[in-house]
Amino acid sequence: MSDSETFDIVVVGAGVIGVATAYYLQKNNPDKRILILDRLPAAGQANTAMSAAAVRNMFASSTNQLLTHTSIKCIEHIQNEIGYELLFEKTGYLWLLSDDQFNHESVQTWMKRMETSGIHYKVFNKEELKNMIPGLNVDFTNDEEAELMNLEEVSYGLFGGDCGVLDPTRLVEFYLEEFKKISDVKPRFGVDVEELLLSADPPLELPGEPYVWQNKLVTGVKTNKGVIHAETVVIATGAWANELLDPIGMNSQTKAKKRQMFVLHADEKEGLHKLLDSKGFNELNCIPFTILPSAGVYFRPQLQERGFWIGCGDKLGRAYHYKHTPSFDVAESSYYENSVYPVLSKYIPAFEGSRPVNSWGGGYNYSPDAIPFVYYENGVLVVNGASGSGIMKADAMARIADALYRGEEEAELFGGKKISSSALTIKDRDVEIESVVI
Amino acid sequence: MSDSETFDIVVVGAGVIGVATAYYLQKNNPDKRILILDRLPAAGQANTAMSAAAVRNMFASSTNQLLTHTSIKCIEHIQNEIGYELLFEKTGYLWLLSDDQFNHESVQTWMKRMETSGIHYKVFNKEELKNMIPGLNVDFTNDEEAELMNLEEVSYGLFGGDCGVLDPTRLVEFYLEEFKKISDVKPRFGVDVEELLLSADPPLELPGEPYVWQNKLVTGVKTNKGVIHAETVVIATGAWANELLDPIGMNSQTKAKKRQMFVLHADEKEGLHKLLDSKGFNELNCIPFTILPSAGVYFRPQLQERGFWIGCGDKLGRAYHYKHTPSFDVAESSYYENSVYPVLSKYIPAFEGSRPVNSWGGGYNYSPDAIPFVYYENGVLVVNGASGSGIMKADAMARIADALYRGEEEAELFGGKKISSSALTIKDRDVEIESVVI
Repeated sequence: MSDSETFDIVVVGAGVIGVATAYYLQKNNPDKRILILDRLPAAGQANTAMSAAAVRNMFASSTNQLLTHTSIKCIEHIQNEIGYELLFEKTGYLWLLSDDQFNHESVQTWMKRMETSGIHYKVFNKEELKNMIPGLNVDFTNDEEAELMNLEEVSYGLFGGDCGVLDPTRLVEFYLEEFKKISDVKPRFGVDVEELLLSADPPLELPGEPYVWQNKLVTGVKTNKGVIHAETVVIATGAWANELLDPIGMNSQTKAKKRQMFVLHADEKEGLHKLLDSKGFNELNCIPFTILPSAGVYFRPQLQERGFWIGCGDKLGRAYHYKHTPSFDVAESSYYENSVYPVLSKYIPAFEGSRPVNSWGGGYNYSPDAIPFVYYENGVLVVNGASGSGIMKADAMARIADALYRGEEEAELFGGKKISSSALTIKDRDVEIESVVI
Repeated sequence: MSDSETFDIVVVGAGVIGVATAYYLQKNNPDKRILILDRLPAAGQANTAMSAAAVRNMFASSTNQLLTHTSIKCIEHIQNEIGYELLFEKTGYLWLLSDDQFNHESVQTWMKRMETSGIHYKVFNKEELKNMIPGLNVDFTNDEEAELMNLEEVSYGLFGGDCGVLDPTRLVEFYLEEFKKISDVKPRFGVDVEELLLSADPPLELPGEPYVWQNKLVTGVKTNKGVIHAETVVIATGAWANELLDPIGMNSQTKAKKRQMFVLHADEKEGLHKLLDSKGFNELNCIPFTILPSAGVYFRPQLQERGFWIGCGDKLGRAYHYKHTPSFDVAESSYYENSVYPVLSKYIPAFEGSRPVNSWGGGYNYSPDAIPFVYYENGVLVVNGASGSGIMKADAMARIADALYRGEEEAELFGGKKISSSALTIKDRDVEIESVVI
């Protein structure tokens, strides 16, 4: 152990989950020496930065409602009370739905559950939507292409005004700066954690231990810059949790798919400027984050650049992966052209002829119930499985992780609401299955 | 499609689950042309043959109780009524438990649930066990090694007499022979299924399809011997389901660990012969399949060879894997020596000095609730996740798979008991979590 260092806690991953967790751990355990590690040159540069950077409280499960509602309130607090600019803009979220979709049991249940939880939403009908969204195509009659493409016609819009978009790297910076104020351990970047060190407890110094009859504990990490020991290792690596957990036989229960984002600018296209300036949804007088009825295609405004980010919820046909590969970082132009663009331009013909000016890819982590995991086993504190919504759940997940670390039965979320610290564990999981996943 | 063949159903994997499923599908869908494929030169040679080859109805979940109870009754029927020798021997299963373990809520609940379901079991106390099992060590007082090894003392035995061991390749042969009697499609061996063919439905013959806006269906398999088309592909590849499902983005929700089996012969060891001939448990007057209180070590008798098979339930420290690698097939001698043998010889000193005469490894498939998966999505009928108990659940799982295929709401299991066909699906899962996993 002579050439290795020792900390109380090592946090692997400086994405939004990692820095938020490090912050609350340090705040509530001031004597602990907490080291943040990330393989990239700065914080929040991996999948946090690759997301659609949007937040919503419009979930169907009371669990996700609570996690996101409190985290978004915290985001508002950071921006409005503390005065730290996160570029949080309440664009709202708008689900465009067909008649069948709107009347489907799952959507009706979703709406009822939002009412029960006091989550505000509005329903717009087809005429209202046509008036509010310039150029929205709500009629596919005699459109053989649309029929071939299985596109559902827009009949309703389900809108949540407390949702919006933000700059996730600023949120990461906020937590990191707050962490640095109260920690005397400097975060380290460019450090690749290669494996978790699983040790016998107590160690007997036998060759090849730990054996099956020994108690085992994770006691640190092996990195490309040497071994670091810690009593607790926080796994906040999002989509890549399996890289570290599988080898020691811990089951993250999550797996990842590649997701892609394409940036379009309105430029000289009058129709896209009008779309961007859709009225009636929010105080910004802009188009909300909008989910189309078919194929999982969605878009969000990017007001500073007068443009849009376009994404798609990949399902059947997109492979699951367990490890990060370079192919994850790069968007596929054929995917935009063949899969995304045809759908987008059918619903909003103003997009016709638009080509991405930028694009990227990232890893999207699937949890089986679309609820995050936060558990503390074998010296490993796993904070994972946000299922594409890490930014909007990070604050709550981080507080729960800290409560688990301190052995508290309940975690206090922003605004004073409480949740059982074990609700998101594997062993004592107590959650509602989430049905509203993008 | 000119140089490819077409069948109604292709069954991938001729292990016990695959052949049983093929048999019930053929029996109840006599007009369908069903092709069984396996990458090995014969049926039942992969993980089916690598298991402990034991069957038990002693589960805590009503789901696993039903699946195993009916499957074991069918095994008895095959051997006793049909007269097909499976070498099924009712050795019984014996869990040796410490005082704390026996009184733990989970064991008490397990016993209550078995009573409710009419599953017979007996409890033996320490004195009875000492008398029945020659050489069993129930006293670790002043044994520092045992303390260092965290070994719990034996205080109770929980015994189920309707459990036993069998020859799984004979069970595979039975289903395969029955299948061949009613099918005119010859099973093919040495055929490696490399990928599932995911196609647009309907196909538009566009380059790179299916796109996200197209309906998708699995329409066959690509093998090392060419493409084979089928309306339905059955995935009965056990621990290796992810190899085929991950690339098309279907989540098997299971993952595999290596398990190992070591064969010891009694040879000239008087103590081991006496152990083998333990009296009072069963009509065979032999030691049951016995699970030791600590470290997951278990052993079963092999009467024909006057020996034992020794195994261990690997937990923390044993990696999860998604693909078959040659390292899975080979047992590790250091694992026997350092992990298994020390535990075994502490409880039964007669094993001291014994060396394996044979050993092998295989893949053990973990389902999150330790209940199998049977679901039919996108043209794929997945029959998977038996979690180390495929042999004892195969008959029931196969009948459920067939009922799902035929669109029946209920499946009739051996003896006439019924279960909802959707109970083991992902979407409409309706199961009790299993707690008694070896």
